[in-house]
Amino acid sequence: MANILDTGVKLVKNVGRYNIGAGSLAELRGLLDGRRAQALALGQDKSVVFLVDEYFQDHSELSAQLGVQDGDVLQFVETAHEPKTGGIDGVVASLHAQGKGLPSAVVGMGGGITMDTAKAVSNLLGNGGRAADYQGWDLLKQPGVFKVGIPTISGTGAEATRTCVMTNAASGLKLGMNSDFTVFDHVIMDPQLTATVPRNQYFYTGMDAYIHCIESLAGSYRNAIGDAYSRETINLCRQVFGVGDMMTSENRERLMVASFLGGCAIATSYVGLVHPLSAGLSVVLGLHHCVANCIVMRAMGEFYPQAYDEFWGMVDAQGVKIPQGVCAGLDASSFEALYSASIVHAKPLTNALGENFKSRLTPEKVADLFRLM
Amino acid sequence: MANILDTGVKLVKNVGRYNIGAGSLAELRGLLDGRRAQALALGQDKSVVFLVDEYFQDHSELSAQLGVQDGDVLQFVETAHEPKTGGIDGVVASLHAQGKGLPSAVVGMGGGITMDTAKAVSNLLGNGGRAADYQGWDLLKQPGVFKVGIPTISGTGAEATRTCVMTNAASGLKLGMNSDFTVFDHVIMDPQLTATVPRNQYFYTGMDAYIHCIESLAGSYRNAIGDAYSRETINLCRQVFGVGDMMTSENRERLMVASFLGGCAIATSYVGLVHPLSAGLSVVLGLHHCVANCIVMRAMGEFYPQAYDEFWGMVDAQGVKIPQGVCAGLDASSFEALYSASIVHAKPLTNALGENFKSRLTPEKVADLFRLM
Repeated sequence: MANILDTGVKLVKNVGRYNIGAGSLAELRGLLDGRRAQALALGQDKSVVFLVDEYFQDHSELSAQLGVQDGDVLQFVETAHEPKTGGIDGVVASLHAQGKGLPSAVVGMGGGITMDTAKAVSNLLGNGGRAADYQGWDLLKQPGVFKVGIPTISGTGAEATRTCVMTNAASGLKLGMNSDFTVFDHVIMDPQLTATVPRNQYFYTGMDAYIHCIESLAGSYRNAIGDAYSRETINLCRQVFGVGDMMTSENRERLMVASFLGGCAIATSYVGLVHPLSAGLSVVLGLHHCVANCIVMRAMGEFYPQAYDEFWGMVDAQGVKIPQGVCAGLDASSFEALYSASIVHAKPLTNALGENFKSRLTPEKVADLFRLM
Repeated sequence: MANILDTGVKLVKNVGRYNIGAGSLAELRGLLDGRRAQALALGQDKSVVFLVDEYFQDHSELSAQLGVQDGDVLQFVETAHEPKTGGIDGVVASLHAQGKGLPSAVVGMGGGITMDTAKAVSNLLGNGGRAADYQGWDLLKQPGVFKVGIPTISGTGAEATRTCVMTNAASGLKLGMNSDFTVFDHVIMDPQLTATVPRNQYFYTGMDAYIHCIESLAGSYRNAIGDAYSRETINLCRQVFGVGDMMTSENRERLMVASFLGGCAIATSYVGLVHPLSAGLSVVLGLHHCVANCIVMRAMGEFYPQAYDEFWGMVDAQGVKIPQGVCAGLDASSFEALYSASIVHAKPLTNALGENFKSRLTPEKVADLFRLM
């Protein structure tokens, strides 16, 4: 296969270390104590920057749980919108204004938005410049600040991947800092943290892991390790969403593992048709990534028939609601915009449909698909 | 569960980076060039120490493939016997005698014996002292030399684990340097390297991955991530050994992945009954670990009935030979020695049979099991 997908030998950077298990958040303080002591010994800034999902803003015990000390920065990350390069630059500027040039660690605690923000901020603290400078592949020159990821919702795999997705509002480019330096040094997976996630959101986000893996296993680009991670991610999702309550403590731990392994799968494979169409919904209609994926599944019966049936079976089993009719009443220019924002993703579309994907995905066909959503 | 297995929260160190795919050995030179340049920039020794399975001694193209330069050390590792602490000390002494105090990298290319030797040598170069000083848990104080693992046979998981098994001839203790510092910084998984492995050895070693995972999934100590790695390792082994030739290029890549993921599984779980009895065969009869595991499977019908059937089905499917009658004619003191060397492994035996494992594994019962082998 000599096409745009064929990179032959794969080089993969793993998350450095991880803690896993209920209660493992308590391990954070000791970890940070070590970083602080090391910084002190070198005459460096021992402070820690905590970037936390705004959901936790009212949790009075949070500072104590995280071990926030004098001189640290605890900043809440808005999650109404997905990260923008300007917003990342703003966080970095505010840290510089507080004298945080090179803290001893950056902690990102939250969902994909918050973890991606922490990854990007760490990179910028270590490399200087602005977020837009590093949108692309391997543009970072050196490591960022030591960074810890603590997912509080499972599915995106942001805790395991080498990217941090962000949109450049000026150019419209939605692209992360793809780099080994973007990978977390440490991840803490504590399933107690996902106990209070709203059920619909829990489902949408968990399905990000499932959908990625059904896409990669159905694609033309395959390899043994990507397949292995994908298969087991799907297996875990079936255990979680198939029958019974998806939010038992066992299932929350399983979904945390599925998210992590799904992220490992992403590192060695490509997605397919769902993610490009989902990106269209995000760019044009502002829908968040995970719910957009689920909406796209309304139109996937023709392309992924088995996964389509399984997906809607899980929706029924868990009694969750997937938005419907999101493209109803859109005008022709909106459908054109949806087409453009989807068809640009040549690699996953090639993986799903071959190099001539545009002959199957005509503007009319794509509009019909969006009308099904 | 409040027993010797219950460590609650788990902390796991991953392999830093890995290459995977046919031909990926060619990536080694560039990787080492980077290490050499970095050492030179710091005014340090830029040389590399290559520890290679003696099997490759007659491969004339080896030095060129590995990128061996003037000043490097290329040393072949004997694999007739599993590593001993004295042997590790001897390698380190010979490196010191050649002025290799802190080379820029140590490369271990071979099976479990060679990779474990490289891990131990790297640790000793970084920490000083003798190998026996670090047999145990978390006794190393600092990182060793940057180390690269290149498996040339698949199954042990040595490329992924935080230990390097070695026997202290003086004390009889078979125990590794269990430490985060023992984990490889980089692993290169090139399935072309396993094309010439003898079929029986390929099977025995591959089964190390399978057997570990059937043991851990049948144990009382379980967690979501260990289970996930174990399930997928078994799945891959079924693909490789179930039907068809186990040594096609696709199956060699699959088994390389199974070995790696099996190693990841080991990091968060315990083995069961096979490994303790296998250790008995190794200590008393000098049988190598992987073939010893397969021999023990002769006696496992009572304990792991499903895996027993599957294992012997795979033996038949692949037409390999498992030694038989290895304990025939042993005297009473040998059976006592086998019992002692097996029953000492309290953690896996507790995992398999509960805290009262000795009530089921009486000396008579254990002798009966060995007689089945």
